[in-house]
Amino acid sequence: MDIKEILSKVDHTLLKPACTGAEIETLCREALEFQTASVCLPSVYVPAAAEFLGGRLPVCTVIGFPNGYDTTASKVFQTKDAIAHGADEIDMVIHIGAVKEGRYDAVAEDILAVKDACGGRILKVIVETALLTTEEKIALCRVVTETGADYIKTSTGFNGGGATFEDIRLFKEHIGPNVKIKASGGISSFEDAAEFIRLGCARLGTSRLVAIAKAGKGDAV
Amino acid sequence: MDIKEILSKVDHTLLKPACTGAEIETLCREALEFQTASVCLPSVYVPAAAEFLGGRLPVCTVIGFPNGYDTTASKVFQTKDAIAHGADEIDMVIHIGAVKEGRYDAVAEDILAVKDACGGRILKVIVETALLTTEEKIALCRVVTETGADYIKTSTGFNGGGATFEDIRLFKEHIGPNVKIKASGGISSFEDAAEFIRLGCARLGTSRLVAIAKAGKGDAV
Repeated sequence: MDIKEILSKVDHTLLKPACTGAEIETLCREALEFQTASVCLPSVYVPAAAEFLGGRLPVCTVIGFPNGYDTTASKVFQTKDAIAHGADEIDMVIHIGAVKEGRYDAVAEDILAVKDACGGRILKVIVETALLTTEEKIALCRVVTETGADYIKTSTGFNGGGATFEDIRLFKEHIGPNVKIKASGGISSFEDAAEFIRLGCARLGTSRLVAIAKAGKGDAV
Repeated sequence: MDIKEILSKVDHTLLKPACTGAEIETLCREALEFQTASVCLPSVYVPAAAEFLGGRLPVCTVIGFPNGYDTTASKVFQTKDAIAHGADEIDMVIHIGAVKEGRYDAVAEDILAVKDACGGRILKVIVETALLTTEEKIALCRVVTETGADYIKTSTGFNGGGATFEDIRLFKEHIGPNVKIKASGGISSFEDAAEFIRLGCARLGTSRLVAIAKAGKGDAV
């Protein structure tokens, strides 16, 4: 797999709490240079990123992030607000507490409300695998499939753990044919990235692959 | 300082990503039993907590939490939504990236918009000390004072570090007379709690003090 192909599946991501507008502009420049799938950034920077990119790359932002325990009304507002200011893709975090209580209907309703607010734009559903049992992961594959969301996404990168090959195999086995997979959290080499793609990931959330490519250290893997 | 006095200044807090409704109910029961200042919990649980407590204790929730990089419009919506469902106190996170760029006017505008949405309810402003320089902490004491917010609060507990005695001394020196201090993040003994109060904290955000008191291990300090 060549590096270009891998980078074309990367949501080039900057979500650290203290990130600045200047760092976001650098992120956007890098994403253009290395032709990633999108940039993924905090909602406060969506207007600036959308203006800077001018439609050359999709702008992705995060909703109910990273803990997922915002109200559904708040997630819907965040989504509409982000789209109104230029967001093309929405990565939302589910209400993990509802999963722990087995209230999968509530989890589905939360996702469906955000999906409705997306108005056809790509919706990725972050389930935060590090906090889930295998049984819960399987149940969420079903829930995400039934909501019609575009992607199931492994991790926020903020709550310990990240994407594992094992989880991607599990997702692949249990999602429906219309759901894609985004691996995120801790992806730090082109070798791992290639394996995630081979296992069935359509997107990878990371900033490190572009950093490696920029340092001229990437190679075919 | 006796334990009752210390507990009366505690915002009894549960904000872990996977917390459930049952855990929130336990939090509320404990807060009533030990007569804490409030309960502090995720917005999705505000309606249930407000109903359970029925005005016996204030319900506090968190806005733009824990990374602070939501849009101001989103923070305002979250605040109004929380208050409409029974929140009495609002703990918001500032836009830390704007601090890093020296855009203190933008930080102030964000706080003022949330303060306006609070309609006179208590507003605590989380500055996330672990990510700030001393100079930035001092500047934020001025900004928070000028906005008329009720409290400056040290930490979310999610971004490394927590309250330190040194930061409380710094705050005390640089805030105006109308601003109170809430220490939060890592407060884990009645000895430390007493010292935070002696240094000038009017509130402490933690779950551990009630846990210690519940285990019958608290004593006058």
